Amino acid sequence: MSALSSSHIEQFKKIIGETFVFTDEEVLNNYSRDATEKLQFLPQVVLKPRTAQEISNILIICNQDLIPVTPRGGGTGLSGGALPWLGGVLLSTERMNSIIEVDERNLQVITEPGVITEMLQNAVNEKGLFFPPDPASKGSCFIGGNIAENSGGPKAVKYGVVKDYVLNLEVVLPTGEIIWTGANVLKNVTGYNFTQLFVGSEGTLGIVTKIVLKLLPLPSFDLVMLATFASPDKACEAVTGIFRAGFNPSGLELMDIESVKIAATKTQTVLPVTDEIEAHLIIEVDGNNEAVLMQEIEQLSQLLEKFDAKEILLANDSNQKAELWKLRRRVAEIVKADGFTIEEDTVVPRAELAKLIHGIKALGIQHNFRAVCYGHAGDGNLHVRIKKEGIENSWQNAEMKIILTDFFQLVKRLGGTISAEHGIGLIQKGFLEIVFSRKHIELLKDIKHVFDPNNILNPGKVFD
Amino acid sequence: MSALSSSHIEQFKKIIGETFVFTDEEVLNNYSRDATEKLQFLPQVVLKPRTAQEISNILIICNQDLIPVTPRGGGTGLSGGALPWLGGVLLSTERMNSIIEVDERNLQVITEPGVITEMLQNAVNEKGLFFPPDPASKGSCFIGGNIAENSGGPKAVKYGVVKDYVLNLEVVLPTGEIIWTGANVLKNVTGYNFTQLFVGSEGTLGIVTKIVLKLLPLPSFDLVMLATFASPDKACEAVTGIFRAGFNPSGLELMDIESVKIAATKTQTVLPVTDEIEAHLIIEVDGNNEAVLMQEIEQLSQLLEKFDAKEILLANDSNQKAELWKLRRRVAEIVKADGFTIEEDTVVPRAELAKLIHGIKALGIQHNFRAVCYGHAGDGNLHVRIKKEGIENSWQNAEMKIILTDFFQLVKRLGGTISAEHGIGLIQKGFLEIVFSRKHIELLKDIKHVFDPNNILNPGKVFD
Repeated sequence: MSALSSSHIEQFKKIIGETFVFTDEEVLNNYSRDATEKLQFLPQVVLKPRTAQEISNILIICNQDLIPVTPRGGGTGLSGGALPWLGGVLLSTERMNSIIEVDERNLQVITEPGVITEMLQNAVNEKGLFFPPDPASKGSCFIGGNIAENSGGPKAVKYGVVKDYVLNLEVVLPTGEIIWTGANVLKNVTGYNFTQLFVGSEGTLGIVTKIVLKLLPLPSFDLVMLATFASPDKACEAVTGIFRAGFNPSGLELMDIESVKIAATKTQTVLPVTDEIEAHLIIEVDGNNEAVLMQEIEQLSQLLEKFDAKEILLANDSNQKAELWKLRRRVAEIVKADGFTIEEDTVVPRAELAKLIHGIKALGIQHNFRAVCYGHAGDGNLHVRIKKEGIENSWQNAEMKIILTDFFQLVKRLGGTISAEHGIGLIQKGFLEIVFSRKHIELLKDIKHVFDPNNILNPGKVFD
Repeated sequence: MSALSSSHIEQFKKIIGETFVFTDEEVLNNYSRDATEKLQFLPQVVLKPRTAQEISNILIICNQDLIPVTPRGGGTGLSGGALPWLGGVLLSTERMNSIIEVDERNLQVITEPGVITEMLQNAVNEKGLFFPPDPASKGSCFIGGNIAENSGGPKAVKYGVVKDYVLNLEVVLPTGEIIWTGANVLKNVTGYNFTQLFVGSEGTLGIVTKIVLKLLPLPSFDLVMLATFASPDKACEAVTGIFRAGFNPSGLELMDIESVKIAATKTQTVLPVTDEIEAHLIIEVDGNNEAVLMQEIEQLSQLLEKFDAKEILLANDSNQKAELWKLRRRVAEIVKADGFTIEEDTVVPRAELAKLIHGIKALGIQHNFRAVCYGHAGDGNLHVRIKKEGIENSWQNAEMKIILTDFFQLVKRLGGTISAEHGIGLIQKGFLEIVFSRKHIELLKDIKHVFDPNNILNPGKVFD
């Protein structure tokens, strides 16, 4: 990698205008962090281009002069994907924030990457349409970042993740060419699936500048219930049982008692906390027929009783529903503020969830750390936050690396993998060999080389 | 490419046993065709391995000695993907025909590639589970071929295509290594999405030897209705209207009057054929509540009347439903037998379907050919079969190439692409430049080179 010179800064000013090239300390500082641990890496310059063509012109220069470029969306990432750890250019997509068209005839939306996810959701909801992916950070993350990380959220259990909605992407390649990955169609087997190759590629293969998403009709009703269990095992058995009985919930979230207790000390939680309760499930169903949903809730209640649910509470109104979801959304930041700064995003086959929870708790006893678990139980996707007293609570700590290695080996043994929706980024790349063969990692690098021969775009993310 | 020698044959016999190495004319002949036009290319040897390790050993030899290898599933492909057009090895997966496990706890199935799709569907149905992709050839195609072509079928409109169900693949690379592309989990952003790169890669990147599929609970009920329209335009407006009104049909098929009339001369069709009718829609809804479905059918009927439907008929029992679907499934072979040997698999944004139909009929007048249209209207995926008198009705004919070029340029202008579910294979590759930039095609070739540096696996398919 080469250093950035003042002549580069001048060239960037010519391309995007002086106003949008930043080198002052305050701005560099603002773009030196994301939501991952407490990591900080300063870029040398922050660029805020407006168009794909401007990005192309920037990348051509950086590719020629071997300057690292780190693309950034809302900066809410949890794997360090947007951290400019090698300095160079930080390229923010925040000015590319137009929803180009809500295509009501085709149930599609064409958008720029810098649109906040919740604003995109609201814009399509207003037309009776629905974009289901729903990350906890939806109020500040960008849709472009969601593409980069293949985001999920609670509705993924019924509706799938971001990849299931992306039809076509305009991408600027590291070498400057602008391509569309596919077509604005629902089915496509014309050439290799470049659209799916770019989704989840964490900004390492190209910079997404336009996004075509499939939309669904917005369901008219949803109902939310809460069930408590005497053990995580019982809760996990219920999760498996719900699907085996043919239900298709639009949300199925688990929170262990440790996370609920910490949340209870920091907020007025709506969740029951008693000595008998070890796990909570939040269950949502949605559809267009309220009577049918009520029937479903009753059937679900009967099923949950068979799995020894302690309490089964139905959210009575939209306020109660919102309270429940708000608490679930906020739990990550609350436990992080409580010192649980390491967040893992493990995923296993759904029926192995109980073993995963047992395993991490057993490792906690063995290695003397505390772990809290919550997440998308219906997908087998458990967020695990770890806090170990007496050491720096970071993936960079040698002791923590041993703990995480043990944990990920467990995940692998259970048939799972190390990231479901947060990405590998900077902080998980050292663990890739646990889940992939040497040949697999070699192929990842070869693919990267095809798109980015000089390794200038988000270098050293996903793999070294 | 090099020629196969008798020493290669001996090596193959050592690897898979003499019984499964075929060089006699009859067998070579049997494996020289698929369901594409009337094309025929003879392989030099047919191999029927049983395991991934055997395939690996075969590929290592072929890779070293530059012998082309064409993988083959059920031989029902419509783009020539399984045709050994350069001779060499024809590798059939027909002996790899075990369903390894229906995992009821996780709603997954692990299968070998040589299982007939309908048998796989039946096996999971027996456990109350559901694998929705449903190609017309389901009675003879293999699930491995469905992976290669990213197959769809009528249920794709609600349930998606094969790619939406593939969680993980065991693949033998052309260089002999055996890798798993992902993990048996519902969400995964660990490295680039190799699973989706292999789905739809038409046997050019590796040979799939094990497949892990997500399953759904089997819906308890379905209802099927038929609606007739005075013009394809009216039918297409109804299609768009159905989705805009918030319906989510599990099937939404269109047949133009030409295809129905030809079908009527060859079979006892259940479809009404009168002078007023120019298009038929078959509409299916499914779910777990029969009363709700009946309500939906009533609401759909009211909506269809607004779009000037002529007749709206509900299939009264499972026999009538089966008859309707059987006719829809058989229409391709019936019109093919009538001389419409060219089948295209175009797809456009759903609301552009009427323009696509008008366009192909206008081209028919201009170039003096007949075209029949039928297909998955709900997905914007129209199968168009073409017959031109007085020339060889093949994609190899120069006049036909001009016709197809005009047609695909229209598709491109409408925002669509040239294959939705049949693949590019041998016969569409000459048209790739209509939908892709030069850089895009270059990238396709570079990706191929990463996995298959000596270009031995299904060479010259998808692109030259």
